[in-house]
Amino acid sequence: MAIDTAPVRVAVLGASGYTGAELMRLLLRHPAARIVALTGERQAGKPVAEVFPHLAGHGLPDLVKIEDVRWDGVDFVFCALPHGTTQQVIAGLPKGLKVVDLSADFRLADVDTYAQWYGHAHQAPDLQREAVYGLTEVNREGVRNARLVANPGCYPTSSQLPLIPLLMNDLIQADDIIIDAKSGVSGAGRDAKQANLFGEVAEGIHAYGIASHRHAPEIEQGLSLAAGRPVLVNFTPHLMPMSRGILSSIYVRLRNGVKPADLHAALAERYAREPFVRVLPEGVAPHTRHVRGANHCLMNVFPDRLPGRAIVLSVIDNLVKGASGQVVQNFNVMQGYDETAGLDVIPVFP
Amino acid sequence: MAIDTAPVRVAVLGASGYTGAELMRLLLRHPAARIVALTGERQAGKPVAEVFPHLAGHGLPDLVKIEDVRWDGVDFVFCALPHGTTQQVIAGLPKGLKVVDLSADFRLADVDTYAQWYGHAHQAPDLQREAVYGLTEVNREGVRNARLVANPGCYPTSSQLPLIPLLMNDLIQADDIIIDAKSGVSGAGRDAKQANLFGEVAEGIHAYGIASHRHAPEIEQGLSLAAGRPVLVNFTPHLMPMSRGILSSIYVRLRNGVKPADLHAALAERYAREPFVRVLPEGVAPHTRHVRGANHCLMNVFPDRLPGRAIVLSVIDNLVKGASGQVVQNFNVMQGYDETAGLDVIPVFP
Amino acid sequence: MAIDTAPVRVAVLGASGYTGAELMRLLLRHPAARIVALTGERQAGKPVAEVFPHLAGHGLPDLVKIEDVRWDGVDFVFCALPHGTTQQVIAGLPKGLKVVDLSADFRLADVDTYAQWYGHAHQAPDLQREAVYGLTEVNREGVRNARLVANPGCYPTSSQLPLIPLLMNDLIQADDIIIDAKSGVSGAGRDAKQANLFGEVAEGIHAYGIASHRHAPEIEQGLSLAAGRPVLVNFTPHLMPMSRGILSSIYVRLRNGVKPADLHAALAERYAREPFVRVLPEGVAPHTRHVRGANHCLMNVFPDRLPGRAIVLSVIDNLVKGASGQVVQNFNVMQGYDETAGLDVIPVFP
Amino acid sequence: MAIDTAPVRVAVLGASGYTGAELMRLLLRHPAARIVALTGERQAGKPVAEVFPHLAGHGLPDLVKIEDVRWDGVDFVFCALPHGTTQQVIAGLPKGLKVVDLSADFRLADVDTYAQWYGHAHQAPDLQREAVYGLTEVNREGVRNARLVANPGCYPTSSQLPLIPLLMNDLIQADDIIIDAKSGVSGAGRDAKQANLFGEVAEGIHAYGIASHRHAPEIEQGLSLAAGRPVLVNFTPHLMPMSRGILSSIYVRLRNGVKPADLHAALAERYAREPFVRVLPEGVAPHTRHVRGANHCLMNVFPDRLPGRAIVLSVIDNLVKGASGQVVQNFNVMQGYDETAGLDVIPVFP
Repeated sequence: MAIDTAPVRVAVLGASGYTGAELMRLLLRHPAARIVALTGERQAGKPVAEVFPHLAGHGLPDLVKIEDVRWDGVDFVFCALPHGTTQQVIAGLPKGLKVVDLSADFRLADVDTYAQWYGHAHQAPDLQREAVYGLTEVNREGVRNARLVANPGCYPTSSQLPLIPLLMNDLIQADDIIIDAKSGVSGAGRDAKQANLFGEVAEGIHAYGIASHRHAPEIEQGLSLAAGRPVLVNFTPHLMPMSRGILSSIYVRLRNGVKPADLHAALAERYAREPFVRVLPEGVAPHTRHVRGANHCLMNVFPDRLPGRAIVLSVIDNLVKGASGQVVQNFNVMQGYDETAGLDVIPVFP
Repeated sequence: MAIDTAPVRVAVLGASGYTGAELMRLLLRHPAARIVALTGERQAGKPVAEVFPHLAGHGLPDLVKIEDVRWDGVDFVFCALPHGTTQQVIAGLPKGLKVVDLSADFRLADVDTYAQWYGHAHQAPDLQREAVYGLTEVNREGVRNARLVANPGCYPTSSQLPLIPLLMNDLIQADDIIIDAKSGVSGAGRDAKQANLFGEVAEGIHAYGIASHRHAPEIEQGLSLAAGRPVLVNFTPHLMPMSRGILSSIYVRLRNGVKPADLHAALAERYAREPFVRVLPEGVAPHTRHVRGANHCLMNVFPDRLPGRAIVLSVIDNLVKGASGQVVQNFNVMQGYDETAGLDVIPVFP
Repeated sequence: MAIDTAPVRVAVLGASGYTGAELMRLLLRHPAARIVALTGERQAGKPVAEVFPHLAGHGLPDLVKIEDVRWDGVDFVFCALPHGTTQQVIAGLPKGLKVVDLSADFRLADVDTYAQWYGHAHQAPDLQREAVYGLTEVNREGVRNARLVANPGCYPTSSQLPLIPLLMNDLIQADDIIIDAKSGVSGAGRDAKQANLFGEVAEGIHAYGIASHRHAPEIEQGLSLAAGRPVLVNFTPHLMPMSRGILSSIYVRLRNGVKPADLHAALAERYAREPFVRVLPEGVAPHTRHVRGANHCLMNVFPDRLPGRAIVLSVIDNLVKGASGQVVQNFNVMQGYDETAGLDVIPVFP
Repeated sequence: MAIDTAPVRVAVLGASGYTGAELMRLLLRHPAARIVALTGERQAGKPVAEVFPHLAGHGLPDLVKIEDVRWDGVDFVFCALPHGTTQQVIAGLPKGLKVVDLSADFRLADVDTYAQWYGHAHQAPDLQREAVYGLTEVNREGVRNARLVANPGCYPTSSQLPLIPLLMNDLIQADDIIIDAKSGVSGAGRDAKQANLFGEVAEGIHAYGIASHRHAPEIEQGLSLAAGRPVLVNFTPHLMPMSRGILSSIYVRLRNGVKPADLHAALAERYAREPFVRVLPEGVAPHTRHVRGANHCLMNVFPDRLPGRAIVLSVIDNLVKGASGQVVQNFNVMQGYDETAGLDVIPVFP
C-alpha cells in the first residue's frame, strides 16, 4: 500500500505489557505510523530492548513516564494501560488527540453496568458518551468518525463476530447462548502472578471467572444491540497451556425452521468481503494455531446431535484480532487508510 | 492393605501403548497382582525397558505375541488392544479367565448401535451379552460378579460420573445436555500420526469429531439408563496441548424449581463415601493438573448467568480414572480386594 | 516394608512451595512418618487443600506460622524455607530435633565461600560445622549419624553423582569439566516472578546465571573432595519449558589411556547396588521424562568425536532426587529405615 | 523496497513439510517472488489450505507431483525434499534454473565424506562440484554467482556463525570446541514418527545423535576452512519441548593471551553491518523466543569460570535463519535484490 501523506506520529501508553509489545510489532511494519513515544511507569528510562528483547534494533524511543510525554509531537495515542487507571489518563490528554484504548474502561456504554461490574463509579462519564466500541467489522462507520475508540476485549471479539450476524438475521434464539471459551495465558498480562507461572499453567486446564467474568456484560451489550432486546449469555472462560489464541465454542438453539447450513450461509455472506474474517468450508474445524500472530478470525458452523441446535466455533489470536491487531485495524479506519495496512502478517505455524 | 491370598497372575495384552504402560505402572505397586505376561505384536521380543524406559528395573517379562502367551499360568487378563481387533482376541481366550477390556469393543450393549458407529457387525455378540460396563461407582455390583468387564472410555467416565446422579434424581432436563470436553493428547494413543506430533498440538486448541465422536453413543447409553428414556447429548471434544487430563464442562438445564445448589448437594451426597470421587467446595474450580497420575474425579457445580441453568465441571486423568486406573479399580472389585488397592497414588504437581 | 516402631512425628517448615508440596506427597505414603505440623508464613491459617488442591483429602494439618508450632510434639523437621532465612530458624529450633534442610544455607562447609557467594556472613557457623552434606550415595555414613543434614541442590545432585566416582577413580582430568545443565521451571520456586510466567518460559530456552550460579561452588566443593584438590568447573544452567527435570550434559577430558567404556564400567560398578541410581546400557540416552515423579538418577557415558574426551549424561527429577525425594532418602538413613521407604514411586509418563 | 523488474516465478518442491510452509510464508510477502508451482508427492491434487490451513486465502497454486510441473514457466526452484532423493531430482531439472536446496544433499563438498555419513555414494558429483554452500554471511560472494546453492543445516548455521570469525581471527583453539545444541521439534520435520509425538516430547529433554549426528561433518567442514586445517568438534544435539528455535551453547578454549572480551569485540565488529546477526550487549543472554519467526541470529560471549576458556551462545529460529529464511536471503543475493527483501519479519513473542 502506498500512503502518500506524512507519517502519523503515534504514542503507545503502557508499552511494557504484552499488548503494548504486540502493538509495537505491528506498528513498526505499518507504512504510515511512526512511533514517537512509549510509556511504562515502572520501566521508565529503559530502552525497549531491555524490556522486550525481540523488539531490539528498530530505533524505538526509550520508555518514559506518561507525564514526560511531549504531546505536541503526538498525533495519535494507543492506550494499553491497566483497567481502572485509564479513564483518568485519557481524560487528561490534550483534546485534539485521537485515541484507541485497549482497556475495558470505555467498553460498556452504560456507566451503571460499568459500576456494577468494576466496583467503582466511572471516572469519565462524558468521555464514555463519546467513546465508540471498536468491533471493526460491526461498527466500521462509528469507528471512522470517532475520536475515542474502545477496543473490544479478546473474548468479546471472538464471540461477537459470529453471533451478531446470527442474531441480526434472527437465525438463533437469543436466550439460549452458551459460550465455552478457551484462552492462552497472554490474555492475563505480563504482571507477575503465581497463577500464571509456567508450573501452574502447563499440563492442565481449568475454568475461571465462571458466570462472573467481566467480559460477559461486554458480550451481552453487543448481542443485545444485535437482537434488539436484552440478551444474557452463559460465558465460561478456561485457561489453556498456550501463550496465544482463543477458541470460542458456542452452542446455540436455532429459530424454528432454521438449519445449521443457514447459519453457515449467513456468516459466509456477511463476511465475504471482510479481509480478516474467514468462514471455513463445511466440516473444517478452526484451530487457534492457524491464526497465531495474525489478525484473522476463523469460524465455522456444525450441526449438533441435539435437534434444533448448532455449534459455532471461532478462533482468533487474543493479542492480535483480540487486542493490538484490531487496534491497528481501527487506527486504519479512523485515519482513512487501507484497513489491512500493517496487518498483512501471515500466521506463524508451527 | 494386607492381602493374604496368593498373588493373582495377570497378563496385559497390548502393553506397548500408553494405557498399557499406565496399567503396568499401577499393577507394579498393587499388593495382589503379579504381571506374568505382556504382549505387543509389533514389539514382541523386546524388553519393556526398551519400549518404556520409565518402567525399567522392575523385572517385568519381555513383550511377546499374543499367540505365545501360556494361558495356564494366567488368572486375569487386561486387554488394551486397539478397537476392532479385541472382540476376536477375547473370544479366543480360555473361558475361565476374567477379563477387563479397555477398548470400545464391548461398551455398547446394543450391537446395532455398535455396528452403526463402528462400521462393521459386532464380532462376538454372545460375549457382548455377557459384558458388564465398568463405570465402577455406578455399576459396582454388576462388576463384582462379571467375568468380562468393558472399561468405560475416558470422555464417558468424566461426563457420566456427574450426570448420572443428576438424571437419576430428576434434577436436570435430559434433552438439553451440552458436554464441551477438553482432552490431553495421550488419549489419542502412541501410534505415529501426523496430527499428534508436537508441532501440530503445541500452542493451540481445536475441536474434533464434532457431533460424530464415538464416545457420544457410549455417554448416551449411560444417561439413557439413568433417565429411564432415550437421551441424546451434545458432545464436543477438543484436543489440548497437554499429555494427560480431561475437563468436561457440562451445561445443563434445571428441572422446574431446582437450584444449582441442589445439584451440588445431590452430588456431594451421592459421592460422600466414594474414595475416588470428590465434589469440591462451593466456588472451587477443578483443574486437571490436580488429578495428574491419580484415579480421582473432581467435580463441582456452578450457577449459570442464564436463569434455570447450571454449569457442571468434572476432571480426571484420562489415562488413570479414564482408563487404566479404573481398570485396576474394577479388578479390585472383581477380586474382592479393597477398591483402592494399588490406587493410592497422589497426583504429581506441578 | 514393615516398620514396627511408632510413627515419627514430622514437621515441614515452608510447606507452601513446590518442594514442600513434593515432600508432603512423598511423606503421605511413607510407612513411618506422620505429618503433624506444616508452616507457611504468608499462608498461615489456610488448609493445605487451598494452597495445593492436589493434596486434598489426606487429613493434613492446616498451615501455621513457625512460631505457632508446638515443638514438643515433633520428632523430625524438614526445612524448605528460602535461602538466607533458614540459618536463624534452624538455630532457634529445640536442640534435640533432627533436621533435613532443603535450602542452600548449610551446604557450603566453608563459611567464607558462603559469604562470598551469598553476600552476607553466615548466621550460624556453629551449626555449619555440625551440618552434614546429604548427597546420600556419596555420604551415607555421615548422614546416618547426623543431626542436621544439608540436602544438596538439584543441579549439584545431578552432576556430582556421575562425576565423583570418575574423579575418585582418577579417570578424568579435574581441570576440564564442562557442565551444561537444563532444568525445568519448578526449580525456580512458586513465588510470583515475571521471568517464570508461562508466556516467558514456553516455546524457548536460554542460559542464565552463566558462570555465576550459586550451585557452582557447591558442585566444586564435592568434586574437590573427590579429586583431593581444588576443582573449578564450567557450570552453565539453562531454563527449559517444562515443569520438572534436569539433564546435565557433562563434557570431560579423559586421563591418559582411559577410554569412555572405562567410565561406563566404573559408574556401573559404583552404582550396581544403589536403588536410585541406574547406569543405562551402552548407547541409550537418558530422558528427564523417564524419571518424572521418581527418585531416580539415570546416567550414561558416550564417546566424543574429540579424541581423549567423553560425554556424560545424567537426569533427575529436580523436585525428587534433586530435592524432596533425596530428603526422604536422607530421613530414611538417619532413622535407620529401609532407604527406599516412601520412595517406591514409579515415574509418570507421558 | 522497490523492485522494478518483473516478478520471478518460483517453484517450491516439497511444499508439504514445515520448511516448505515456512518458505511459502516468507515468499508470499516477498516483493519480487511469485509462487507458480508447489509440489508434494503424497499430497498432490490438494489445495495448500488443506495441508497448511494457516496459508489459506493467498491464491497459492495446488500441490502437484514434480513430474507435473511445467518448467518453462519457472525461473527459480526452492527444493525442500527429503535428504537422499534430492540429488536425482535436481540433476533432472532444466539446466537454466537457479536452485536453492534445503536438503543435506549438496552441503558436503567432499563426496567421500558424504558417502561415509549418508551411507551411499553421491548421486550427482558433478552438481556437487558446482554447488555453493549458502551460509550467506560467510559466503556471500560465492552465493551471488551460484546457480545451485546448498542451504546450510539449522545446527550448522547456529554454530558456524559465531565460530568462523573466532577461528579466522585465531582467537580460539581449533581442537577444543564443544557444541551443546538444543533444538525445537520442527527440525525433525512433519512426517509421522512416534518419537516426535506430543506425549513423547513434552515435559522433557534428551540428547540424541550423540557424536554421530550428520550435522557434525557439515560444521567441521566450515570450521576447517576458517581455521585453515582439519577441525573436529564435539556436537551434541538435544530435543526440546518447543516447536521452533535452536540454542547452541559453545564452550571454547582461548588462544594464549586472548580474553573473552576479545571474542565479543571480534564478533561485534565482524557482524556490525550484517542485517540479520546481532551481537548482544555484554551480559545479556540470547533467548530462542526472541527470534521466533524471524531471520535473526543473536549471539553473545561470556567469561568462563575455567581460566582460559569462554562460553559462546547463539540462537536462531531453526525454520527461518536455520532453513527457509536463509533460503530467501540466498535468493535475494543470487537475484541481486536487497538482502532483507521479504525478511523484515519481527519475532512473535510471547
